[in-house]
Amino acid sequence: MHRYRSHTCAALRKTDVGSTVRIAGWVHRVRDHGGVLFIDLRDHYGITQVVADPDSPAFKTAETVRGEWVIRIDGLVKARTEDTVNKTMATGEIELYAQEIEVLSAAKELPLPVFGEPDYPEDVRLKYRFLDLRRETLHKNIVKRTQVISAMRREMGGAGFTEYSTPILTASSPEGARDFLVPSRIHPGTFYALPQAPQQYKQLLMVAGFDRYFQIAPCFRDEDPRADRLPGEFYQLDLEMSFVTQEDVWNTMGPLMTKVFEEFAEGKPVTKEWPRIPYDEAIRKYGTDKPDLRNPIVMEAVTEHFAGSGFKVFAGMIASNPKVQVWAIPAKTGGSRAFCDRMNAWAQSQGQPGLGYIFWRKEGEKLEGAGPLAKNIGEERTDAIRTQLGLGDGDACFFVAGEPEKFHKFAGEARTKAGEELNLVDRDRFELCWIVDFPFFEWSEEEKKVDFAHNPFSMPQGGLDALQNQDPLTIKAFQYDAVCNGFEIASGSIRNQSPETMVAAFEKIGLSQQDVEDRFGGLYRAFQYGAPPHGGAAFGIDRIIMLLVGAKNLREISLFPMNQQAQDLLMGAPSPATPTQLRELAIRPIPPVKKD
Amino acid sequence: MHRYRSHTCAALRKTDVGSTVRIAGWVHRVRDHGGVLFIDLRDHYGITQVVADPDSPAFKTAETVRGEWVIRIDGLVKARTEDTVNKTMATGEIELYAQEIEVLSAAKELPLPVFGEPDYPEDVRLKYRFLDLRRETLHKNIVKRTQVISAMRREMGGAGFTEYSTPILTASSPEGARDFLVPSRIHPGTFYALPQAPQQYKQLLMVAGFDRYFQIAPCFRDEDPRADRLPGEFYQLDLEMSFVTQEDVWNTMGPLMTKVFEEFAEGKPVTKEWPRIPYDEAIRKYGTDKPDLRNPIVMEAVTEHFAGSGFKVFAGMIASNPKVQVWAIPAKTGGSRAFCDRMNAWAQSQGQPGLGYIFWRKEGEKLEGAGPLAKNIGEERTDAIRTQLGLGDGDACFFVAGEPEKFHKFAGEARTKAGEELNLVDRDRFELCWIVDFPFFEWSEEEKKVDFAHNPFSMPQGGLDALQNQDPLTIKAFQYDAVCNGFEIASGSIRNQSPETMVAAFEKIGLSQQDVEDRFGGLYRAFQYGAPPHGGAAFGIDRIIMLLVGAKNLREISLFPMNQQAQDLLMGAPSPATPTQLRELAIRPIPPVKKD
Repeated sequence: MHRYRSHTCAALRKTDVGSTVRIAGWVHRVRDHGGVLFIDLRDHYGITQVVADPDSPAFKTAETVRGEWVIRIDGLVKARTEDTVNKTMATGEIELYAQEIEVLSAAKELPLPVFGEPDYPEDVRLKYRFLDLRRETLHKNIVKRTQVISAMRREMGGAGFTEYSTPILTASSPEGARDFLVPSRIHPGTFYALPQAPQQYKQLLMVAGFDRYFQIAPCFRDEDPRADRLPGEFYQLDLEMSFVTQEDVWNTMGPLMTKVFEEFAEGKPVTKEWPRIPYDEAIRKYGTDKPDLRNPIVMEAVTEHFAGSGFKVFAGMIASNPKVQVWAIPAKTGGSRAFCDRMNAWAQSQGQPGLGYIFWRKEGEKLEGAGPLAKNIGEERTDAIRTQLGLGDGDACFFVAGEPEKFHKFAGEARTKAGEELNLVDRDRFELCWIVDFPFFEWSEEEKKVDFAHNPFSMPQGGLDALQNQDPLTIKAFQYDAVCNGFEIASGSIRNQSPETMVAAFEKIGLSQQDVEDRFGGLYRAFQYGAPPHGGAAFGIDRIIMLLVGAKNLREISLFPMNQQAQDLLMGAPSPATPTQLRELAIRPIPPVKKD
Repeated sequence: MHRYRSHTCAALRKTDVGSTVRIAGWVHRVRDHGGVLFIDLRDHYGITQVVADPDSPAFKTAETVRGEWVIRIDGLVKARTEDTVNKTMATGEIELYAQEIEVLSAAKELPLPVFGEPDYPEDVRLKYRFLDLRRETLHKNIVKRTQVISAMRREMGGAGFTEYSTPILTASSPEGARDFLVPSRIHPGTFYALPQAPQQYKQLLMVAGFDRYFQIAPCFRDEDPRADRLPGEFYQLDLEMSFVTQEDVWNTMGPLMTKVFEEFAEGKPVTKEWPRIPYDEAIRKYGTDKPDLRNPIVMEAVTEHFAGSGFKVFAGMIASNPKVQVWAIPAKTGGSRAFCDRMNAWAQSQGQPGLGYIFWRKEGEKLEGAGPLAKNIGEERTDAIRTQLGLGDGDACFFVAGEPEKFHKFAGEARTKAGEELNLVDRDRFELCWIVDFPFFEWSEEEKKVDFAHNPFSMPQGGLDALQNQDPLTIKAFQYDAVCNGFEIASGSIRNQSPETMVAAFEKIGLSQQDVEDRFGGLYRAFQYGAPPHGGAAFGIDRIIMLLVGAKNLREISLFPMNQQAQDLLMGAPSPATPTQLRELAIRPIPPVKKD
């Protein structure tokens, strides 16, 4: 028989009854039922119930074992009596009568329990991550994570993509976030950088003629701790395609990701045909470029109904500024004063002056708009609004007014709040869409100049001509995001592969050709030697897995995460370097300046 | 029709004749045959021949295109005449009659040619890597690399392994080589390290209960440039298994790697049953722990035949030191004075005093040993040697004498030299084996103390008992290598998962329990909370791919390699950091000391 096991802890079935077998694993728990010991033995695959009564030669050892000890058990497979069969366990029809127990590794008293799912301080969990990872939920999440990634690889391969690994020790690239730097020993005073994304390398791969690239790519950004991002590294499903338009990227990746989602959605519906929503439309309808389409609320402009109306606040704003609009947030089933007042109070808690509303209720046969706003604008306008939005008895509508670019974010939040409070959001589904036609430039209020809105490597719609002849703030890019249930899960674009157009684009934000050469030399050089049209995207793997397993915390889907202070408490990183290391790297830490 | 292509450059067949199609790609070359232009258009998938004669509306544009321009061509598929069919090309039965050509991206004059495989300076190749990668051989090697890795993933998955990614920003671990360090911004004065290997993490995964781990793992060692290792990063197929003996690792990974090799061996035979050769035996027979088993030469000790013989040099050494042995390197078909003298001269070029030999030839009916050595020891001893080694007419034998631990390396080189010079090595095969039972400790002449011979985390054979009661230099480890054609392709071991045995092992090399806790705290802590027996290996992916594609240079199988000075000439790394970056990281480069 094998030294440690003939079967895993998930393998034994009724058909094995009568066999003598060997299993090994961790003691999940021990119960003493009137002198008979029941040991749940656990391994990666499952749990098997082991029994030792005082007649068993293994009883003496069985009495000594404690939770999380690693033991090997030889025993006889017995059928459980009908009333003790456990249908929720794969091995629930049998139990193992222990004949011999060997302790392979004892365990000290546990700093955190493995059995059950109790709350425990984060830092203890991370220091003893090897114990935390034995917890059923976390173990299952991590396994699912590997399965999702494996499915992505399989589907990408099936779609004709090839996985290439790009360098991790590379050049500092001023793309946006802060780089992690690695001092060079051989060239003192210089540094490598860890890639924020393999953006330039994947484009170089296209220029090198490799058509369809993907990579489960580690990315590194030295950012300050944020609730929705772990410090240090994260993974992207990064991809790039040559000789494509953005339609090709959408038609390839939409159905492919739908398939991956469906595989792990446990029966929840997943969008098959991803809607393509222009950025402007998304802002107008949902107040955000990351709309949760499970929320059925669609906002509409109702400016005309307030222009010249008796509600002087809105009417005055509209009259004095042609940019002012009034948006309506229709809230079906929200038609009670209590709910409307709650929304109003919430708006004030968000720093808003309040949230105007109308709600409708039947007075006898008549459908009447209620609330101060309805009174101010009168019955006719109230009814016109109701008709436009398709509302009826028991429904409500909220209103925000001003310049849309200043209020759309809040309006979107109000839409979310109303949808969630009224339970209009169907949580048990995955609603996916593309947000397309992002603006290429945006106005930077801080720097008082035009800046790239997103990826500087994207192709502006209209190309060189648009850059030369169009108001930059009206130029759209061949730039798109994928959004699921209100979260951005991917971003991508068709790239600007023309050296002239690239220089023209950077000139708009105040950089010269020399700057482009200095900062993106490799890519700029490459575009001069036959660059194919290309484009792609990068999907955020951590976010997708959080959605699929329903986790709220990144640490529930990550194997060895750092804490929010960017420390690895398990391995003890970061830590001081030795004098030899510092000398070899020719760097000296600057002691902190003492503050009074 | 699609904006860029209806077919790839490898897709068109005779069945497409008569169709109007669109293809896009790089101009591989242009030939002018009496006014008719032939353009070989190339993409990732293949090459299609395009024809433009002066009647074609595309002719004017065709005249302007140059090598490596990216163009789109619309045209009519025509059958080639029988005498122009090219059977070596997938598209060799057709050609495309160009009707419209669009230049998608022109190319400046090329700094290195793509067509053909000319020699070119390394630094130009690396600076213009995107052009070098278009070369047929390199392109093919890189694609094969991705296929090999993909096959490894498939086979590992099939064998029940799961791929887990371990952290890249981690703790400095004094495992052997030099770490790359990453300064922490949030914790000034401290550093992360890039992993030299995921050794500790994969063991922690086993302790966390994840049974069968693998990873295509990026590893980082800041080593001085070496011909057989690229600076910076390299990839390993890293794996670990719980509840296993070393037999399980061999029985799993041997057949699996044979299958991977066979898939890419292009018909060359691959060892099916990997021999398991104890380390001591490998040294004795081949002079090395990385034997090339394609070389049929097996060395044997022939000390007794020289003891007390007339060859006073050897006889004297044997008499004065019981550790002295004489090893014979039998060289079939090497029986000519010219060859033997060449080997002798080679030995002297290696810093040896020379290489004694005997060779045999028929003198009439008599088989006679020739050379000075044969004369000195006499006919009887000469013949005894010949018989022991199974040699005959036309064969030779070389001899080295001394203490084996001092000469075995040279003896192994002489074996290799003889095998290769005599063409005894069958180059068209892959000979794989396990080298097993490595010594656990070795004597460090520099430090005058016992040190770990290989992996300090390996389990010593005999466990705690051996550490307490055995001469450390006689203890073997459950430690093994995989070797292919004379190259180490993997290294692995059963791990020491007992905290007591771990401390006892480190004590032998002069480290205390406190040292173990300080240096390997995460792992040491983990072993106290229920650690399963486990073991694994790491296969060197770059070496395996070099063997499979027959590349001599790592840069021929790597996508974006650095040069030997650890510089990325394409992206311009490493480079100076900005003052802001240095301030944020609280480090200061130390200016180099000027030397007179």
